[in-house]
Amino acid sequence: MKLIAKVCCTALSVLAGLTGSSGVNAETQWRSVDSNNAVLMTLPHGKVVIELAPQFSPKHVAQFSKLVAGGFYNNNKFYRVIDGFVAQGGPSEEATDAPELNIEGEWKTNDAWAFAKVQDNDLFAEQTGFKDGFAIAYNPSEKAAWLAHCPGVLAMARGNEPNSASSHFYFTIGQAPRYLDRIMTVFGRVVYGMNNIQAIQRTQALEGEAAIPENDYTAILDMKMMSAVPKAEQLQVEVEVTESKAFAEKVANRRARPEAFFYKKPPPVLDVCQVPVKSRLVKTK
Amino acid sequence: MKLIAKVCCTALSVLAGLTGSSGVNAETQWRSVDSNNAVLMTLPHGKVVIELAPQFSPKHVAQFSKLVAGGFYNNNKFYRVIDGFVAQGGPSEEATDAPELNIEGEWKTNDAWAFAKVQDNDLFAEQTGFKDGFAIAYNPSEKAAWLAHCPGVLAMARGNEPNSASSHFYFTIGQAPRYLDRIMTVFGRVVYGMNNIQAIQRTQALEGEAAIPENDYTAILDMKMMSAVPKAEQLQVEVEVTESKAFAEKVANRRARPEAFFYKKPPPVLDVCQVPVKSRLVKTK
Repeated sequence: MKLIAKVCCTALSVLAGLTGSSGVNAETQWRSVDSNNAVLMTLPHGKVVIELAPQFSPKHVAQFSKLVAGGFYNNNKFYRVIDGFVAQGGPSEEATDAPELNIEGEWKTNDAWAFAKVQDNDLFAEQTGFKDGFAIAYNPSEKAAWLAHCPGVLAMARGNEPNSASSHFYFTIGQAPRYLDRIMTVFGRVVYGMNNIQAIQRTQALEGEAAIPENDYTAILDMKMMSAVPKAEQLQVEVEVTESKAFAEKVANRRARPEAFFYKKPPPVLDVCQVPVKSRLVKTK
Repeated sequence: MKLIAKVCCTALSVLAGLTGSSGVNAETQWRSVDSNNAVLMTLPHGKVVIELAPQFSPKHVAQFSKLVAGGFYNNNKFYRVIDGFVAQGGPSEEATDAPELNIEGEWKTNDAWAFAKVQDNDLFAEQTGFKDGFAIAYNPSEKAAWLAHCPGVLAMARGNEPNSASSHFYFTIGQAPRYLDRIMTVFGRVVYGMNNIQAIQRTQALEGEAAIPENDYTAILDMKMMSAVPKAEQLQVEVEVTESKAFAEKVANRRARPEAFFYKKPPPVLDVCQVPVKSRLVKTK
């Protein structure tokens, strides 16, 4: 019986550590992801929902949405997938590409700009926090803010020129590559099916290993704007409101770690990329 | 042709950013992972090699090695797998468990202690760096050092009591949960097959999703000390020597980002968990 309790409590404790559920009084607030602003990507092994960020990266979202709506990405492949780093996809070399975009790696803030602050003196920014569910980095001294390269963001790939992104994109699949902050355009994030992103076939073999045959690369069976998916097949996702009292309590709780499991309290700091923003599926009738 | 170049260079540039290969002159130094100190875990979808860390967590390594050698983990399941957090496995509730262990979450350093420093003023520690391929956090003011919870480490689960770990273990599979540093015992890391760790079936469903049937949980088909695996089936892994000149150059290069792709240089800081330590497979004759 002792063992059962232990296994049970280990799991629960660690879970509590993750969800920060204890000590939170306000009820989680949810908002629906707008189907005009969501993408449904169907992979051979499962579905993924992406929420786009037109409020932060309008031109990239506009171009990506237009390409998705036109079926541009159907049958594209993830051709450069490096474990712990990125899963990059896009059209084949023969395909006609989309126009090049001016980078939208950061934006200027005015005095009215606000976000749900999580941490001061993050390694890569003066402040970090959330806005609309997205992890944000912010340098007040520069009046500049940007979307942080946390795991599960969607960003546009580019050449050496800053304004050379067009259609090739990547998902971050490992420890946040924050050194790409501000010099790449993040324009969305995975709100459902991150496990399916993690299951994309890696294309980079280790030295000494056989190369991965191109036929094994993961294909995008279909990519559609959610609003264009027949109602019965739509996935309706809700995400936590990061500007809510409940989220602020969750963050405070995560910092303080009041649970007995934390017999010694960790430093009262938070890595913004390690604060999960919850999603849930809403059953459609 | 322009497009091909772009795709090519995007990939190469981002890769260069990852491997930090440009600007590095010294040749990578490798060392063999000792087969007496390595574990081969066979999952239904592939193999994983773990290097143990007896120099840092001797009692946990001794107990885990003994359990592995006795076939304890064969047919165990990963019963708590949370995307972006941990994949936790261990024996069923009915199984006899192993003795409880005193926590080995950190150690005291003396004046002779040294490591390959990467960063000052990391969010969670005064200094970070590497030793023997493992990511290390170090507080000189406390004369204390510990193995950092970077992605791909192996640690022992426990109950609320610090000295209650026995056999249940977890791999970290998402953004480094550094708040677990010092209060859990890390005792190894994945040096081959991290993609197979990432492909372990998640057991936690999203709110609104159907529960994942226990029959779908990923089983450990077999777990053996590498030295007990028939020679022909052994995987001989080499890892970068993190105390070498080449590694120091790689780290310096990663900090400076001299590549043209970095048209604006990122802040000259490094997240120790985002500095990959390379592995390679050695072909056995």
